[in-house]
Amino acid sequence: MNSKRELALHVAGLVLPDSVEAAANYVPFVRFGDLLYVSGQLPRLDGAVAVVGKVGEDVSIERARQAATICALRILSVVRMAAGSLDAVEQVIELTVYVNSGAAFIEHSSVADAASGVMEMAFGKAGRHARTAVGVAQLPKGAAVEINGRFALCQG
Amino acid sequence: MNSKRELALHVAGLVLPDSVEAAANYVPFVRFGDLLYVSGQLPRLDGAVAVVGKVGEDVSIERARQAATICALRILSVVRMAAGSLDAVEQVIELTVYVNSGAAFIEHSSVADAASGVMEMAFGKAGRHARTAVGVAQLPKGAAVEINGRFALCQG
Amino acid sequence: MNSKRELALHVAGLVLPDSVEAAANYVPFVRFGDLLYVSGQLPRLDGAVAVVGKVGEDVSIERARQAATICALRILSVVRMAAGSLDAVEQVIELTVYVNSGAAFIEHSSVADAASGVMEMAFGKAGRHARTAVGVAQLPKGAAVEINGRFALCQG
Repeated sequence: MNSKRELALHVAGLVLPDSVEAAANYVPFVRFGDLLYVSGQLPRLDGAVAVVGKVGEDVSIERARQAATICALRILSVVRMAAGSLDAVEQVIELTVYVNSGAAFIEHSSVADAASGVMEMAFGKAGRHARTAVGVAQLPKGAAVEINGRFALCQG
Repeated sequence: MNSKRELALHVAGLVLPDSVEAAANYVPFVRFGDLLYVSGQLPRLDGAVAVVGKVGEDVSIERARQAATICALRILSVVRMAAGSLDAVEQVIELTVYVNSGAAFIEHSSVADAASGVMEMAFGKAGRHARTAVGVAQLPKGAAVEINGRFALCQG
Repeated sequence: MNSKRELALHVAGLVLPDSVEAAANYVPFVRFGDLLYVSGQLPRLDGAVAVVGKVGEDVSIERARQAATICALRILSVVRMAAGSLDAVEQVIELTVYVNSGAAFIEHSSVADAASGVMEMAFGKAGRHARTAVGVAQLPKGAAVEINGRFALCQG
């Protein structure tokens, strides 16, 4: 653990997964200048998608929030891989949160808040980001949640 | 009203809401260099989501266009807050328009055009932007439309 | 054909459409500095949307992959228009792939891989990008797939 920000997560019982690989013919991130673009992350644990189904129907809101937390930790694992350390992040810019929604589910903000909370826990004020949360018809592998992100890195 | 661009909207009967706050633990915008990222905006009036339901079923296309207009004005209110004045905008870069779609609704472009029209009205040629419009399964609070945006600000 | 990258596509039997126009009151791309934002592209051939319907129900996965290929070629046609030549691309940054999904369809990655493959074929290592693929409820004109993209251009 090479970062005070990872330590902050660790104290809260949140551990970054060791490594994240793209599941198909794309890459987990692209860095362009100081901007880092992170691919959409599913709630995978040890490779398998851990939370599957429609939120509000098959999946409770609490379980969906856990899924969002897992996605957020995977995003941070990618950031660490891209930048060397979470301490190289100047600002979390933006998250897009896709919730696999049952027909009547409208509490997307509550699900997305779990991911936003991870960013705030890791980065404090620099973790406050722009956000869009929407309800989609399906997600890859039937995942309950998918999240991507854009980050500003410290110049170096 | 500190901007000729706001005046252009005003002449057309369009008024920016006074202020926009994020509804959860994220922020309405992040500025990184000259790039401004604006969070997804729902069609809120005085805090409440004014247009709720599935477009093409519960919500007419005309009403959905009104919702898109409200979202666009909220985005511009955030831009004004972030940049001080709409005159600080160099270019509208991109809008993403999410329409809460009934199963058979395919006129997303017409809904999105209402938001694009607001940008053109405010900024003229600098308001011509890249755009993506899609139909989603649900939106936060059951909103009929959600729109986010990215803007280039004048250097300063 | 003014580009070795177009030639690489041509050898694979893939031809860029002549020109792409926005179907409504927005523009096909915005360039800001070295960043190019390309509007969402539908699988249009000669103006008409060629692949319509829900993937996994009305549209087979193979047909959806063809649709994704058409979208990707349209994106590259826009890039060529914006940058003069595909050779002006430094890096493909990010694709967002929206699949008009039947209720049970979960192979969005396989559909998106067709678009990613076009990028790899044209740009080699510079074509490896960040990606998000989701399943949406509907798309403009009932299209089976819609894809947008962000590109880094060579300085000049």
